[in-house]
Amino acid sequence: MTMILDELVARLHPTQTLTGDATESYTRDASPAVPEMPLAVVLAESTQDVSTTLEWASTHRVPVIPRGAGSGVSGGATATKGSVIVSLERMKAIRELRPADRLAVVEPGVIIDTLDAAAREQGLMFAPDPASSAWATVGGAIATNAGGFHCLRHGVTADSVRALTVVLADGRVLRTGARSRKNVAGYDLTHLFVGSEGTLGIVTEATVKLEPIPRGQTRTFLVAFPSLMQAGSAVSELMASSITPDLLELLNRTTANLVEDFEPGHLDRGAAATLIGQVTDLDADAQIHQLRTLFARHGGEHFEVRKGDALIEVRKRVQPALAARGMGVAWMSSDAAVPPSRLSELLRHIEQLQIEDGRDISVVAHAGDGNIHAAVAGGAGGADDLAAAKRIVRAIAERAVQLGGTVTGEHGIGSLKRDFLALQFDETALEVQAHIKAALDPAGILNPGRAV
Amino acid sequence: MTMILDELVARLHPTQTLTGDATESYTRDASPAVPEMPLAVVLAESTQDVSTTLEWASTHRVPVIPRGAGSGVSGGATATKGSVIVSLERMKAIRELRPADRLAVVEPGVIIDTLDAAAREQGLMFAPDPASSAWATVGGAIATNAGGFHCLRHGVTADSVRALTVVLADGRVLRTGARSRKNVAGYDLTHLFVGSEGTLGIVTEATVKLEPIPRGQTRTFLVAFPSLMQAGSAVSELMASSITPDLLELLNRTTANLVEDFEPGHLDRGAAATLIGQVTDLDADAQIHQLRTLFARHGGEHFEVRKGDALIEVRKRVQPALAARGMGVAWMSSDAAVPPSRLSELLRHIEQLQIEDGRDISVVAHAGDGNIHAAVAGGAGGADDLAAAKRIVRAIAERAVQLGGTVTGEHGIGSLKRDFLALQFDETALEVQAHIKAALDPAGILNPGRAV
Repeated sequence: MTMILDELVARLHPTQTLTGDATESYTRDASPAVPEMPLAVVLAESTQDVSTTLEWASTHRVPVIPRGAGSGVSGGATATKGSVIVSLERMKAIRELRPADRLAVVEPGVIIDTLDAAAREQGLMFAPDPASSAWATVGGAIATNAGGFHCLRHGVTADSVRALTVVLADGRVLRTGARSRKNVAGYDLTHLFVGSEGTLGIVTEATVKLEPIPRGQTRTFLVAFPSLMQAGSAVSELMASSITPDLLELLNRTTANLVEDFEPGHLDRGAAATLIGQVTDLDADAQIHQLRTLFARHGGEHFEVRKGDALIEVRKRVQPALAARGMGVAWMSSDAAVPPSRLSELLRHIEQLQIEDGRDISVVAHAGDGNIHAAVAGGAGGADDLAAAKRIVRAIAERAVQLGGTVTGEHGIGSLKRDFLALQFDETALEVQAHIKAALDPAGILNPGRAV
Repeated sequence: MTMILDELVARLHPTQTLTGDATESYTRDASPAVPEMPLAVVLAESTQDVSTTLEWASTHRVPVIPRGAGSGVSGGATATKGSVIVSLERMKAIRELRPADRLAVVEPGVIIDTLDAAAREQGLMFAPDPASSAWATVGGAIATNAGGFHCLRHGVTADSVRALTVVLADGRVLRTGARSRKNVAGYDLTHLFVGSEGTLGIVTEATVKLEPIPRGQTRTFLVAFPSLMQAGSAVSELMASSITPDLLELLNRTTANLVEDFEPGHLDRGAAATLIGQVTDLDADAQIHQLRTLFARHGGEHFEVRKGDALIEVRKRVQPALAARGMGVAWMSSDAAVPPSRLSELLRHIEQLQIEDGRDISVVAHAGDGNIHAAVAGGAGGADDLAAAKRIVRAIAERAVQLGGTVTGEHGIGSLKRDFLALQFDETALEVQAHIKAALDPAGILNPGRAV
């Protein structure tokens, strides 16, 4: 193996490969998946470097794991034994920013917030905003089709990608899409790569959409509901209206109590569900008035409004509150999604699981998207706790699919959720995905064992 | 062949197959492509019918051409000798309309305007609006990833598709996507089928997005520019601003004169470019004021504003004015697209082609999308005229690609533009598309000779 590796090292700059202990910080992502010792880490600086690496890997059948910031929570970038990690962190240039075309051309390693800040200097924004946006990369967001807080208004990462440069398994360079806002020539290969978790190719350049910053006043609101059904019907009526909030988050009773334990003062411990939302518009106050009436009709209580995004702080306490209890997204958690009208059914199912299992299940949901984050409380993370968490997460995924949804709304399959694929896909769907994988990566060297 | 056909006829209801002269009205689309005699037309009424037909076709290697309303202009649905046309026109049910989930579940044969009208009864809209929306089907829009007048604000058809039921070449039924607004499980097969022009499978059900109807006042405006460069810089500055018009159309001098010949009164015959646009917003008048100043800075003249969409009528005269001269989209025409900032470069190239060739070239562009429609004037459509038109359309496509754009922005490749594919795609891109096609349709029976 050393001779094979020497061949790769010789084809790159001496500072571009790491081996042994030096690979350590590149072996984990933000999930509990356990890494193994990779053969090497390649610190790519260009499309050519990635091409060289993949050509070499293809020849020698070495598994390759592409890596952004390692902020993924599904084990999609964890090192496996004998693999080569291709880190894109050095490829962080914003190559072009073209406000008139509402697009930017970037390397994959650019940090999401960095790109957004550059866009905002031009009066535009880069919409994708996962919770990790301060350190996660645009390439990682593309590889996982990352969601975020503002998807309800601005869509997911896929909606912001127009064209890609992708290095294929054999080292060839593919250019997909176009810079124009419309393009119907050939198949949409761009969106085939978005969300494919590095299993079909490695993105080395992306042309992404920028969009105007919402105008008007920003208001945040908070409202408590005595029952999950009432909260659900309120969300349904809101989504059927002409109002599209910037975000709309739901905390179940367990989560509200965890947050109150962590930093008391804002939440009703007795409420079955709390909604926290935000609107930004020219008539924000009129929308707030309309929402107040709407929520009241569905039993909403303690409606509270603030200028700016003050109440979002309450929502942001959820992660630290969970972390303080050893829970959260880096622990075994569900990110299933359902159509918003079915959210309360999913939440009631989770309540039932909680009763049956005896463990608390914390839910914080992007309610307008029907996308939940559920974490199982209690225990020190031992084998029993993990088994219970897995059982519950699987039961939630199963129910979400029955309700017309998905086993994963924004975190991806990675290595941790592969046994959920069969919950969502029948044999035909699994086979078509396998055919696509085989067509693009016949030797199966690209992030094997992930995503599909 | 008759025995083979008998086998299919026996497996469907007697009223579901047409042969001989009865197939005539199913053999053409709205392009000048010349149809040949098909073996039969199948009038599918269910996913099962389509599955039966494709299973049969796969076994006997019979080419299958899916068909909506036949409104396509690129020869994507024209009958070829010995093919079976699968018409989806009988599958026109709106199965579900779920305002709270902002989605509808429809059969492919539903007319676009019918779906939009049903959505509007719920206070929502179905965004795709090609010029043929009164007779074109949702399935056809999905197969071609159709554009339309309001793409600038609402995106293309692909942006409105969430999940599909697709019958594969061998008759198996594939379900892609989910009803949830987010879904990152597996590969994005949904958007692989959107725009694939029936070459990868036949869509028999679609889950599509509905969206809120824009609020506020509607204003239309018209402004003339002395030069293409000034019009281009005005479009660029507008697109870099916070204003997103509902639509923004550009007429070149030739088009303005054709419209004036057809129905005089509104356009400046001397202007190099006329922009016609529309805004709908709570502060429409303030936006109009901002636009007036912006256009004036770039030499805009005769700025005119109307309440409602009055001036859109002027834009709508373009097609009849072209038709009166035997031109228009059903004649050999270009629908290339470029990033909006490069639009004036493309228009000046067209001006140059016009001078070199001596024939008038009419351009009407979805300017905000950088998507042109160029038709070559003069002649009675004889061989010389066709050759000249083809030469010019090819030259436009070539330049559009150089400017970062595409050979086709919204009409598709069909059968008429296949030799443009090599202008836009290198060998790797063509090969990847061929691999995908082979993975999903190994026998090559699905709309052979189209799209890729």
